[in-house]
Amino acid sequence: MLNDYNEGQSNLQKKLEEIVEGPVFSGIIQFLILAAAVTFVLETEEAFDEYKIYFDIVDWVFLVLFSAEYILRIYVAPVKKEFIFSFFGIIDLLAILPSLVLIPGFRVLRVLRFLRIFRIFKATRFILAVDRMIEALSGVKRELLALVILSALFVYLAACGIWYFERFEQPEAFGSIPDAMWWAIVTLTTIGYGDVYPETAGGKIFTAVVALVGVGLIAIPSGLLASVLTEARVEEDEKDEEEDEK
Amino acid sequence: MLNDYNEGQSNLQKKLEEIVEGPVFSGIIQFLILAAAVTFVLETEEAFDEYKIYFDIVDWVFLVLFSAEYILRIYVAPVKKEFIFSFFGIIDLLAILPSLVLIPGFRVLRVLRFLRIFRIFKATRFILAVDRMIEALSGVKRELLALVILSALFVYLAACGIWYFERFEQPEAFGSIPDAMWWAIVTLTTIGYGDVYPETAGGKIFTAVVALVGVGLIAIPSGLLASVLTEARVEEDEKDEEEDEK
Amino acid sequence: MLNDYNEGQSNLQKKLEEIVEGPVFSGIIQFLILAAAVTFVLETEEAFDEYKIYFDIVDWVFLVLFSAEYILRIYVAPVKKEFIFSFFGIIDLLAILPSLVLIPGFRVLRVLRFLRIFRIFKATRFILAVDRMIEALSGVKRELLALVILSALFVYLAACGIWYFERFEQPEAFGSIPDAMWWAIVTLTTIGYGDVYPETAGGKIFTAVVALVGVGLIAIPSGLLASVLTEARVEEDEKDEEEDEK
Amino acid sequence: MLNDYNEGQSNLQKKLEEIVEGPVFSGIIQFLILAAAVTFVLETEEAFDEYKIYFDIVDWVFLVLFSAEYILRIYVAPVKKEFIFSFFGIIDLLAILPSLVLIPGFRVLRVLRFLRIFRIFKATRFILAVDRMIEALSGVKRELLALVILSALFVYLAACGIWYFERFEQPEAFGSIPDAMWWAIVTLTTIGYGDVYPETAGGKIFTAVVALVGVGLIAIPSGLLASVLTEARVEEDEKDEEEDEK
Repeated sequence: MLNDYNEGQSNLQKKLEEIVEGPVFSGIIQFLILAAAVTFVLETEEAFDEYKIYFDIVDWVFLVLFSAEYILRIYVAPVKKEFIFSFFGIIDLLAILPSLVLIPGFRVLRVLRFLRIFRIFKATRFILAVDRMIEALSGVKRELLALVILSALFVYLAACGIWYFERFEQPEAFGSIPDAMWWAIVTLTTIGYGDVYPETAGGKIFTAVVALVGVGLIAIPSGLLASVLTEARVEEDEKDEEEDEK
Repeated sequence: MLNDYNEGQSNLQKKLEEIVEGPVFSGIIQFLILAAAVTFVLETEEAFDEYKIYFDIVDWVFLVLFSAEYILRIYVAPVKKEFIFSFFGIIDLLAILPSLVLIPGFRVLRVLRFLRIFRIFKATRFILAVDRMIEALSGVKRELLALVILSALFVYLAACGIWYFERFEQPEAFGSIPDAMWWAIVTLTTIGYGDVYPETAGGKIFTAVVALVGVGLIAIPSGLLASVLTEARVEEDEKDEEEDEK
Repeated sequence: MLNDYNEGQSNLQKKLEEIVEGPVFSGIIQFLILAAAVTFVLETEEAFDEYKIYFDIVDWVFLVLFSAEYILRIYVAPVKKEFIFSFFGIIDLLAILPSLVLIPGFRVLRVLRFLRIFRIFKATRFILAVDRMIEALSGVKRELLALVILSALFVYLAACGIWYFERFEQPEAFGSIPDAMWWAIVTLTTIGYGDVYPETAGGKIFTAVVALVGVGLIAIPSGLLASVLTEARVEEDEKDEEEDEK
Repeated sequence: MLNDYNEGQSNLQKKLEEIVEGPVFSGIIQFLILAAAVTFVLETEEAFDEYKIYFDIVDWVFLVLFSAEYILRIYVAPVKKEFIFSFFGIIDLLAILPSLVLIPGFRVLRVLRFLRIFRIFKATRFILAVDRMIEALSGVKRELLALVILSALFVYLAACGIWYFERFEQPEAFGSIPDAMWWAIVTLTTIGYGDVYPETAGGKIFTAVVALVGVGLIAIPSGLLASVLTEARVEEDEKDEEEDEK
């Protein structure tokens, strides 16, 4: 952590930075992040409505602690601007902002606190694995983009088709193409809630054709990513072996 | 763009062709295509029913613009026939035809305008990626065809089986094999709307066996395509590396 | 077609065998097989109930034709036994048997006629592709068997678990483990009809865990087959290239 | 089976150990395990309620037999502790414990008997295949862990999002984030029972985006395992070939 920037830091800042970057402080923050995520979930549970006052207190405690941490991190940062506009700097701000601003309905954005969860993974093997995955994916980004465009076209055409067949029979479910798009996505991802489905013979035949083709089309990207991740691992293993041989 | 055909073109045609093939004209057409696709979707929305008159006007504007473009493209084409029967020539005609013909119910074919969307991708990396994907797929076309035939057989036999078990219990849903085929497709693609499902013990046991085998069978082509696309990328990467080494 | 067996054939048999194995006869039989399959489907459609008499006549025509073909094939076979107990000999018999036997409910087995569909593919690229696929699969048969056993165990344990959580809440849907197995299969294949689903908190948490693990487990065999088919194609291509180089 | 431990065994122990480890005893135990599993399933079937007394007797017989086997195995074990705390030692105890303890509701744990099913596979090719699969998987354990964490984050965020959009419209289904998590899991695994689904426009658009991304994300691990198993097989085959060449 000793680099050129540190020259502009006072002794106090240097000592505090060591603490902030140290394992104890990091562990406490990780615990607070998880606790805030769990509290947010429990707070929505009707069974705990009578404890609302306690949840509000806990919320304020989290706000104070996260705000203090944010100010501390700015204080110890050798270059303030760099921290404020860094990935974690923005996330840390987003995590406290919703509780500060008093616009009604805005508080729900406390869910953004959850983004701080990435702090937990900072400098861990998880980030390493994700980095390697993103690198592997970048090798098939043209194929992925093409598949995404084809899938979007397919959803559009499926929605237009089913709208044509079902609009008079089921005007409440297929009365417009945006409505039909809801059906198209629920069908082609194979979720199939059963809230909307074709009832005319034409609509059913159209669905049969569209489903057999589209379900396969939309499943390809996922399989592609799986294959690429395996390839990446194999190549890496081979590199390791070559290095071992040297 | 200067080839033998151009000899038959007048100076005006040559100048216009340059404009038509240029980036500005192309950009305007791409915007119009997307605008027409969005308009078509919005027009079906009940909430916009009161603006129907405006949508009709916009429709006519699109018709005039696309027709003008079509005539212009024929005019500048060195060999008229070649353009008219080319892929994009036919699509351009299909995009204006439905609005011209006044047969009721025929106007819905304006959805064909959407085919013009492919113009947007013309000469872009998207077409390149799709081309490479089609090439990769052609290597497993025998396997794909075999899997499609096997899946079709499976759907047929599944429909016959469930019809046998459920036809008396649920005559409205499984009264005939075509009805049962609707069930077979919704089940084997794992959509499972829940509008039709077996209720007899025999039908449920039959479904259990059919689902465990058939769901896997029908998912294979998708995984096959994903694997082949990855293989194609790996081979291509290796070629690139070999060329780099030279 | 001239081999040792033929010595025991009369001239008539030899001439008839040539016709039976020829493309014209083969084409007619293929048409009849498809026609019988389509007729079987249409016959079950209520809309055609008034034409039942015609369907019965057509059924009898098919029976006579297929029976004649069967007898003819036995007649021309150099070694009768060999044909009768061959794959296609048994299928040809199964195709006519259900119509001959007059046990009620037995006629539904006319669906077996459909097995004759394999005659259509005889000596075609389809059989070749299927053969190659079966060969590729035999290389992972141990993995497939292990996955099938693991999946069966998983379905059993999932059924026991959900039965434990839901049996008192929903006795009609989860009253016994066989009932719960229906749920387990519909859930783990991700069909999810929605006819049965957990309603207790315990059952939902159990389902969440079971679904996340089990859905992945049951999808593995399908992906495995897809990967293996690709590998088989790659190896074959490499062999072809090596042979080309020689 | 003759090793240092055996020195502490009496002649009777040695003889009994030979029997216990022999194929006849093993076969009987395997039959009893399967019989116990089937009995457990049938016992829950309402149709057999009148035979409850017989099932109780059979249960006691299984208990006596499995207890006797457990005691016998301890007796013949050269080092008692080693057997008792071994994988199969613990499973054997778990299989008899639930029937011994008389706490009500505890008997359901007889399902644990099913764990004894692994005894059936002991020292068979199944265990070998599973071992090889686990080894192959350990090579992608970092990727798997990263995908599991990402999926968990995705489920959490999807639940928070849908709760925000639907909580006022459908308080009984989306009233709290834990409730919304049930929806998130049923949707992202594509089960889609249809018991809960979004009804607001915002909720549907959110679901469309979440489903298209999340369904793909959650399907990746399964495809990854399939690919890795294939790679492992290919590598193994190559090793075999290399050994053949030597």
